[in-house]
Amino acid sequence: MTTGAELSRLSLNQRTTASWSLPEAIQGCVDAGLGAIGIWREQLAEVGFDEGCRLVADAGLRVSSLCRGGFFTAADPAEAQAAEASNREAIDEAAGLSAATLVLVAGGLPTGDRDLQAARDRAASAIERLVPYAHERGVTLGIEPMNPIYAADRGVISTLGQALDIAERFDTADVGVVVDTFHLWWEPGVADQLQRAGERIVSYQICDWITPLPADTLLARGMMGDGHIDFPTFTTSVAAAGYGGDVEVEIFNADLWAAPPASVVDTMVERYLRLVQPYLT
Amino acid sequence: MTTGAELSRLSLNQRTTASWSLPEAIQGCVDAGLGAIGIWREQLAEVGFDEGCRLVADAGLRVSSLCRGGFFTAADPAEAQAAEASNREAIDEAAGLSAATLVLVAGGLPTGDRDLQAARDRAASAIERLVPYAHERGVTLGIEPMNPIYAADRGVISTLGQALDIAERFDTADVGVVVDTFHLWWEPGVADQLQRAGERIVSYQICDWITPLPADTLLARGMMGDGHIDFPTFTTSVAAAGYGGDVEVEIFNADLWAAPPASVVDTMVERYLRLVQPYLT
Repeated sequence: MTTGAELSRLSLNQRTTASWSLPEAIQGCVDAGLGAIGIWREQLAEVGFDEGCRLVADAGLRVSSLCRGGFFTAADPAEAQAAEASNREAIDEAAGLSAATLVLVAGGLPTGDRDLQAARDRAASAIERLVPYAHERGVTLGIEPMNPIYAADRGVISTLGQALDIAERFDTADVGVVVDTFHLWWEPGVADQLQRAGERIVSYQICDWITPLPADTLLARGMMGDGHIDFPTFTTSVAAAGYGGDVEVEIFNADLWAAPPASVVDTMVERYLRLVQPYLT
Repeated sequence: MTTGAELSRLSLNQRTTASWSLPEAIQGCVDAGLGAIGIWREQLAEVGFDEGCRLVADAGLRVSSLCRGGFFTAADPAEAQAAEASNREAIDEAAGLSAATLVLVAGGLPTGDRDLQAARDRAASAIERLVPYAHERGVTLGIEPMNPIYAADRGVISTLGQALDIAERFDTADVGVVVDTFHLWWEPGVADQLQRAGERIVSYQICDWITPLPADTLLARGMMGDGHIDFPTFTTSVAAAGYGGDVEVEIFNADLWAAPPASVVDTMVERYLRLVQPYLT
C-alpha cells in the first residue's frame, strides 16, 4: 500500500488520460491519492472557468500547471496580437486556479518561413510583453524547451540552456522553465543546466522516450520505464537543483488513450514510486 | 545549362539513390557532371574493394566521404572489439579511396541500457583508440553529430558543440566533424559552433527537415527546398568557417527511392544550384 505522503507530489496532467473530462480527472486524482493535477485550457473551458476552479478547490488539489500559453511565433501582426490576447486570458485562468505555472510552448515556424532565429526572437519578445501582466496577477510563466523533433512545427526553443537564456532576463518569480524529460533527456550537459536553473524550475514533467518512435510524433511519448530515459539520474539532478514542487506525468500516446484511464493512473503511480519518487529528496 | 565549375563541388551520397549499385552511381555522377561521390561500405563490398577503387579513379571522381564507421557504444567487450576491428577495415578502405573522411556515427544505447553519458564516453574512448591507426593511413575521422531524434537508437552525440568537444582533443588532420543540415539546423548557436569548427569541418552533407515527419524516422529526410531548413543561411555559415570541400547530398527517403534515380539527381542538381551553390563562397 502506498501512503498519502509518497504520492503527495505526484500530479496527473490531463493529457495522460485524454478521454476524461476535467471533473472525471479530478475524481481520478482524488481516488488515486494524488496531490495535484495539470489542467488543460480546453477541458477547463468545457466545464467553465468558475466551476473548474470550484471543483479543483473542493477536491483539495494543487494545480501543478495550466497548459498552455505560448504559440508566439506568428510573423503576421494580427496573429501575433491574437496570440497575446489568448495568453492574457490564460494568465487570468492560471491566477484563478493558483497554478504553479502557465506553461508556454513557443510555437513553430510560420508556413513557408525558414528563419528560425527570427522565430526564436519573436517568442522571446512575446514573453517580454506578457511579463508585466503576469506579474500583476502573481503568475509565473514557464518556458518549455521542446525536443528538436518539434523545432519546425511546434516549439522553436530547443534546449534548457536556450530557455534559461530567455528566462534569466526576468525576475525568477516572473519567468521560469518547464523541465520535461522527453524534451531534455538527450541534452549534452543537462545536469549543469538544471543546476543553473535552480529555482527557475517551475514544473517537472515526466514521460519516456520510446523507440521505434510512434508514427505520429505528437503522440510519441511513453510511460516511464518503457523507454530509454534514466529517471533516477535525471530526477536526482532536478532535486539537487532545489526543486520541491509537483511531478507531473504528461504522456501523449494513442495506446494509453485507448486504455481505461484509471488503469493508466495505476501504472503511472507504480512507475513513479519505483523510478522517480525515491530520488526526489 | 549548368557548367562543370558550378557542379564541381557537388557530391552524390549513394543513399540518395539507394537502388543504384556503385557502378551505376558512379556513372550517374559522371553523367550529371558532379565532382564527387559519397560511398557506402555495403555497396563497395558488392563490387569488391579493388574494383571499386578502380571505378572511382577511372571516373575522375573525388570520394567526399566513406560511410560509415562508428557504432561504438556497445558495453559488451566482445562487441566493442568487433566494432573496433570493423572500423580499422573502414579506415583501410577510406585510405584506399582517398576519401576526404570516414564518417563516424556514434551508435545508440545498448538494449536496456539507459546511461547516456557512459555511452557517450565509450564513443569518445573508441575514437581515441582509432586515431593512431587512422593517422598512420592518412585518414581523417569525421564525427557526425546526429539529430536528438536518434539519440537513443543511433547516435548519442547530439550537437556540433558536443562533437567538437571530442574532436578538439586530437589534431585537426586526424579528427574532424561532419556537418549535416538535417542533424544540426535547429541547434542554438550553430553559426558560432560552425565558426569554432573551422577547418575541422571535413564534410558538409545536406538534406531537408520535412513535416509531418515520415513514419519511419530513419527515412525522414527531404530534398533541399521541400522542408524548413534555411540552406542559404546555413551554407553561408559553413563557407564563412572556411570550408572548401564537397557538398554531399544524402537523403534517406522512401518516396525518393521509388523514383527513377537519374531524375532524383536532376532535382538535387537544380536545388543545389538554387539554394546552396551561390552561398558557398
